[in-house]
Amino acid sequence: MKRILLLGAGRSASSLIKYLFDHATAEGWFITIGDITVSHLRPLIEPISFADVITFDVHNEEQRATEVAKADLVISLLPAVFHIEVAKECLVQEKNLITASYVSPAFLELHHEAQEKNLTILMESGLDPGIDHMSAMAVIRRIQANGGKLTSFKSFTGGLVAPEYDNNPWHYKFTWNPRNVVLAGQGTAKYIKKGEYKYIPYHKLFKRTDSFHVDGYGHFEGYANRDSLSYREPYGLLDIPTMLRGTLRRPGYCEAWDVFVQLGITDDSYVLDNSESLTYRGFLEAFLPPAKASGQSMAERIGEYLNIPAQGDVLQKLEWLGLFDETPVELAGATPAQVLEKILKEKWTLAPGDKDMIVMQHLFEYEQEGRKHEVTSSLVVTGDDEVQTAMAKTVGLPVGILARLMLQGKITHRGVVIPIYPALYEPVLEELKGYGIDFVEKEKVIR
Amino acid sequence: MKRILLLGAGRSASSLIKYLFDHATAEGWFITIGDITVSHLRPLIEPISFADVITFDVHNEEQRATEVAKADLVISLLPAVFHIEVAKECLVQEKNLITASYVSPAFLELHHEAQEKNLTILMESGLDPGIDHMSAMAVIRRIQANGGKLTSFKSFTGGLVAPEYDNNPWHYKFTWNPRNVVLAGQGTAKYIKKGEYKYIPYHKLFKRTDSFHVDGYGHFEGYANRDSLSYREPYGLLDIPTMLRGTLRRPGYCEAWDVFVQLGITDDSYVLDNSESLTYRGFLEAFLPPAKASGQSMAERIGEYLNIPAQGDVLQKLEWLGLFDETPVELAGATPAQVLEKILKEKWTLAPGDKDMIVMQHLFEYEQEGRKHEVTSSLVVTGDDEVQTAMAKTVGLPVGILARLMLQGKITHRGVVIPIYPALYEPVLEELKGYGIDFVEKEKVIR
Repeated sequence: MKRILLLGAGRSASSLIKYLFDHATAEGWFITIGDITVSHLRPLIEPISFADVITFDVHNEEQRATEVAKADLVISLLPAVFHIEVAKECLVQEKNLITASYVSPAFLELHHEAQEKNLTILMESGLDPGIDHMSAMAVIRRIQANGGKLTSFKSFTGGLVAPEYDNNPWHYKFTWNPRNVVLAGQGTAKYIKKGEYKYIPYHKLFKRTDSFHVDGYGHFEGYANRDSLSYREPYGLLDIPTMLRGTLRRPGYCEAWDVFVQLGITDDSYVLDNSESLTYRGFLEAFLPPAKASGQSMAERIGEYLNIPAQGDVLQKLEWLGLFDETPVELAGATPAQVLEKILKEKWTLAPGDKDMIVMQHLFEYEQEGRKHEVTSSLVVTGDDEVQTAMAKTVGLPVGILARLMLQGKITHRGVVIPIYPALYEPVLEELKGYGIDFVEKEKVIR
Repeated sequence: MKRILLLGAGRSASSLIKYLFDHATAEGWFITIGDITVSHLRPLIEPISFADVITFDVHNEEQRATEVAKADLVISLLPAVFHIEVAKECLVQEKNLITASYVSPAFLELHHEAQEKNLTILMESGLDPGIDHMSAMAVIRRIQANGGKLTSFKSFTGGLVAPEYDNNPWHYKFTWNPRNVVLAGQGTAKYIKKGEYKYIPYHKLFKRTDSFHVDGYGHFEGYANRDSLSYREPYGLLDIPTMLRGTLRRPGYCEAWDVFVQLGITDDSYVLDNSESLTYRGFLEAFLPPAKASGQSMAERIGEYLNIPAQGDVLQKLEWLGLFDETPVELAGATPAQVLEKILKEKWTLAPGDKDMIVMQHLFEYEQEGRKHEVTSSLVVTGDDEVQTAMAKTVGLPVGILARLMLQGKITHRGVVIPIYPALYEPVLEELKGYGIDFVEKEKVIR
């Protein structure tokens, strides 16, 4: 029997748990699920014999050691900041680890020790990062194997609400951590275009969007992620002239979100002096210059300040959120970003019955035998229901499949690894098709 | 004989050194000047018997201890970051200390120990902070003593080039640390207006300026400093409805500087990937979106991006700096802010013979017996020459005067102190008049 320790069983773990349970008997697995609260998990495991849940506190050193000791493989879906302690315990006890989070500098430091101990710390194995790497590498390797030379790679991913449940002017609802959505893009976005490094400061990021189209799903817009450059090396694209990774939204979202950025209300670096006594309207007021004429509406004042039409779509989106109302904020000692998050949650939370949707699109350009080709590879995944969401499926299933491969001894890369190797991504992409997670590819000669 | 240890003898120390030398014989002082390089000081002290210079390395613990031990009073004009080690040594050896820098949180922690040991650490004793506190407190206390209630206090200070030597379209040259000028205003400016807290993010700071006028010197504009609120308590203005402290420039400067902010080229938080191979023009290019039409000039592209006229004053200021030229940057591993600083130094350095100018203006409003009054208190100081600059005089003279008062035993406030008390500011302001550092006050009833 192989023992799997799964740490972190929040909403995005549902599809991974289902995958592990579905394969437990055939594979001879026993699955221990640890989370800080487990009451929601008890009904799930009651009828089954191959799984258990435990209250798990990642800060409890002794428990960390005891539970890792019992496991053959550890999977962590804990918040990213907690992974490193788990990873260090895995190294001490010589266990393999899988996570869906980014390789942080602290993880890079573990690479050699993991290699020396013949261990695999497999990171970036969810959706983004995860499926994006795997699907992009499949196309990149194929183009290169056929003698093509990549000249441009752009890739955008977004978690959205499915069209049938899209009933708000932002065409957006929260499908993952709202705090991360509010803080998204802070810092400077860095990419390369036609061989020149380009930098976009945060206050210009939501103005400098790309537009694109996914067959059957309409138009989208994308803004650049903070770092589009660090994957040039792992992707084997060190001399590619153009490379950009970004986040995708429905058209109109970015222009309206930019109002928040321009006002300064996405700032999480300081606490407001009086957040507990503010209303939504007063919150906006604190970021506005004085009215130029008496009797001006909030929309008119913001419009004048930011040079956008007071009657247009953008300010209607703000009004729809209730931002111009005297609703009390009721948050003490809050940063602007925390107040904004609270206001957005009132309106952007998925309603019962709502389904989410993941959209990913890669755009490649390559040259072969003097001609320029364009490849578009698109993925759209819709949630089954509120539990098996598109987000849960696309994050959890690749982790589950990689866990199975690892326990079957089929993963031979050692150290801190991301799934950019055919031995990893080929079986994952193949198995994902069975779950409806399948890219549609189009290719044309453009010159 | 009283021994003064002066640490830090850069450009802004010249007036302080002159003041100390002028009073040394009458006061019975011996002055030791310590700096990391002292060759420029040797000719200065050669003919005199009451001063010496030493090579002083603030990181050398032993030397710090030895030199502080010999002193009756320590004055530090070292870069602000080095003061804290000097202050700790002063506490150990029970010596008084004077600096011209802001009270940092690390200094606040020394307050009780200094009080217990009956010592004075006198901070914020230069120009801004320094003369601004002293001159404002003199007016505030007088208004309050006469039964007036302050309703508004705004205060702006700027170091500029004197009008006769102002020969560039920015009407600005560097008169203190260029790096601080490039980074000025980063973070969020916080102030209070009519009882409401107001926040201005950095990317709006240079758009939201105040205009004002100083008799005989024309018009100025000011942008808000990062924190206008923390002086409400020391000034005794905890319930003042409006308070704003800011930095002053000639009209047009802020609008043009805002182009740098909008482009993102004042950012000091990351290193450019290829700064060593960039030209000035290439540096700008890295922050611009692609040209919308071929053959567009840089001015046209920036104008279109930032919605400003391509032929107007703003972009002419950039062109005057040479920013559109293919001049090599020649700086490796530089941040955007470092590249910008290098470019600006080429054009904004005071030429031989140039004189600088300090401008400070306080604007008070108060209510008394049902009427509203306005008081304007303005200071303009012009440099004597390139050594006795306005900056050196206004920073050094108040420090020197306070040093004399301290050695005469006339300063009785203990702990970490700023010069907001009449016993400190009254003699300083009086003596400064003899050096032409004198405020012009105007008062009128406005309602």
